Amino acid sequence: MATIRDVAKEAGVSVATVSRVLNDKGYIHEDTRKLVNEAIQKLNYKPNEVARSLYKKKSRLIGLLLPDIRNPFFPELARGVEDEMQEQGLHLIIGNADEKPEKEVEYIQTFKQNNVIGIISATNHADTTPYENLSFPVVFLDRTTNSHPSVYADGLDGGRKAAQEIIKRGSKRIAVLRGPNSVRTAQDRFKGAIEELCHANMDFHVISSSFSFSDAEKVAETLFEKYPDIDGVIASNDLSAAAILHEALRVGKSIPDDLQIIGYDDIPLSKLLFPPLSTIRQPAYDMGREAAKLLIKTIKNEPLPEKNIKLPVTFIERQTTRKVEKND
Amino acid sequence: MATIRDVAKEAGVSVATVSRVLNDKGYIHEDTRKLVNEAIQKLNYKPNEVARSLYKKKSRLIGLLLPDIRNPFFPELARGVEDEMQEQGLHLIIGNADEKPEKEVEYIQTFKQNNVIGIISATNHADTTPYENLSFPVVFLDRTTNSHPSVYADGLDGGRKAAQEIIKRGSKRIAVLRGPNSVRTAQDRFKGAIEELCHANMDFHVISSSFSFSDAEKVAETLFEKYPDIDGVIASNDLSAAAILHEALRVGKSIPDDLQIIGYDDIPLSKLLFPPLSTIRQPAYDMGREAAKLLIKTIKNEPLPEKNIKLPVTFIERQTTRKVEKND
Repeated sequence: MATIRDVAKEAGVSVATVSRVLNDKGYIHEDTRKLVNEAIQKLNYKPNEVARSLYKKKSRLIGLLLPDIRNPFFPELARGVEDEMQEQGLHLIIGNADEKPEKEVEYIQTFKQNNVIGIISATNHADTTPYENLSFPVVFLDRTTNSHPSVYADGLDGGRKAAQEIIKRGSKRIAVLRGPNSVRTAQDRFKGAIEELCHANMDFHVISSSFSFSDAEKVAETLFEKYPDIDGVIASNDLSAAAILHEALRVGKSIPDDLQIIGYDDIPLSKLLFPPLSTIRQPAYDMGREAAKLLIKTIKNEPLPEKNIKLPVTFIERQTTRKVEKND
Repeated sequence: MATIRDVAKEAGVSVATVSRVLNDKGYIHEDTRKLVNEAIQKLNYKPNEVARSLYKKKSRLIGLLLPDIRNPFFPELARGVEDEMQEQGLHLIIGNADEKPEKEVEYIQTFKQNNVIGIISATNHADTTPYENLSFPVVFLDRTTNSHPSVYADGLDGGRKAAQEIIKRGSKRIAVLRGPNSVRTAQDRFKGAIEELCHANMDFHVISSSFSFSDAEKVAETLFEKYPDIDGVIASNDLSAAAILHEALRVGKSIPDDLQIIGYDDIPLSKLLFPPLSTIRQPAYDMGREAAKLLIKTIKNEPLPEKNIKLPVTFIERQTTRKVEKND
């Protein structure tokens, strides 16, 4: 691989001159710049990013912090971030914080030590202390905060929509799964749902649950024992909806006749469930893209038309909810 | 944040001395080392990884190249790699190559420019040319090759097992989904399956398919039109098995009575399908861990007891296959 020395020799200039051309710093005669660029092309020289980053005090690395890439909502989100970053010549270091504050702090430290030029954080904790006083910008993703720029979906509206749609389709005894307390987006959708249920004078059960797989299975196993008469479930995400659907079929319920279920997220496999899951769709990929764009704008010191971007959610009607008459 | 200068001042030594202690290079008096380490602790000094990497020509970054993190097999794999690396104080830059050779080459270049100390590649192409003549080691994951260390699951045995189990349970008219031509692990499992089917003198259909979601849906939509009489499907992965299961239920087939289905991978959602999917399990998380261990050993120049590690696969019996009598 060609080095900066080879380029300097080929162009007949000093290494410092090549460096000035590369970093676009200081005065360079146009002819010299041309000579250097020709040498770079001829030798197919690729500057060492670490050396450049030290010189310019900048890298092309972005830190992306996720709760857990194994939750099927996050790969979509991460791809959205990656695709936008890649188009801008930036690269991702990814960390999974596992909803553990100490792991989150550790990864922020790691990102710092690797001279990232920005962080996108999609972790769940409301506390933003570890993100204060960093020398580079932070954008929160799938998480709302006033202290930093952020991109999130409209959870309050999502919860309302879920409740409206299940009520409209005739469920009377509804269970609402309340996602993790510490996750504001989960609480937003929960708030939206109970607001709407109260508004409609419905009775309902609140079931506490996390977003994790194994928890969803446990909740599903006891749900129909505890509440044998429920005819509707508003789940906190698609994973828990899938677990409940699965258990409902196992105990012989007919879906959607005996029980309607509405999920949240619209992860890729939701449409492959049987029956395919009706759900509230969060635009995960677009959220990732938007967060990347917002971070890049912040890094470039460009003005932000909106500091906190709220994306709309939509009801995806599939077959775990009944059809509604057109003239309802 | 404390700088190396602050540490030097606190310890009453030169910056060069602190640097020698940090990098464990050159002679240092034991008392001086103690003073420096105490100053580091007192000021909670974190060395800048980029500066260290340039000095030692080493970073603590590893490049991980995946086909697409959105395929639910890969988050498990990636977590296995990340968890092992994190325990060793190493960090991941992740890239998705999308089965595009030019994107693969681009990411290798990016990894190089960021001074990674190794690459784990789980991409699909058989060609290893872009990995030749790199200045750091490469480990292939979920991919077999003789030129480099690798970790993969026993695809040939997996295919055989799938065929044995479906034959044992009484399927007579079997469709085998053949995964992508360019993916050797897909071809291994396909070979294993047809070897066993031939051995048992069975007739069967071969259906070409990729691993992608949308492709699986298309294959599923036409499968029962083209072959209305099939009573068994050996799928190339769980995604395509889920698509087929879904379509089979839609056209009114009873599972597993009319049709048995065996998937491949055992992705987390397979057990949440209805009926839960019988499948061949690849130990994705462990494969990631093993690959990380193998790479770290290679980086440290430790001897490799095995250069190519083949992990076993297992048949996971769920409910898309019929029960087999104990005395069969």
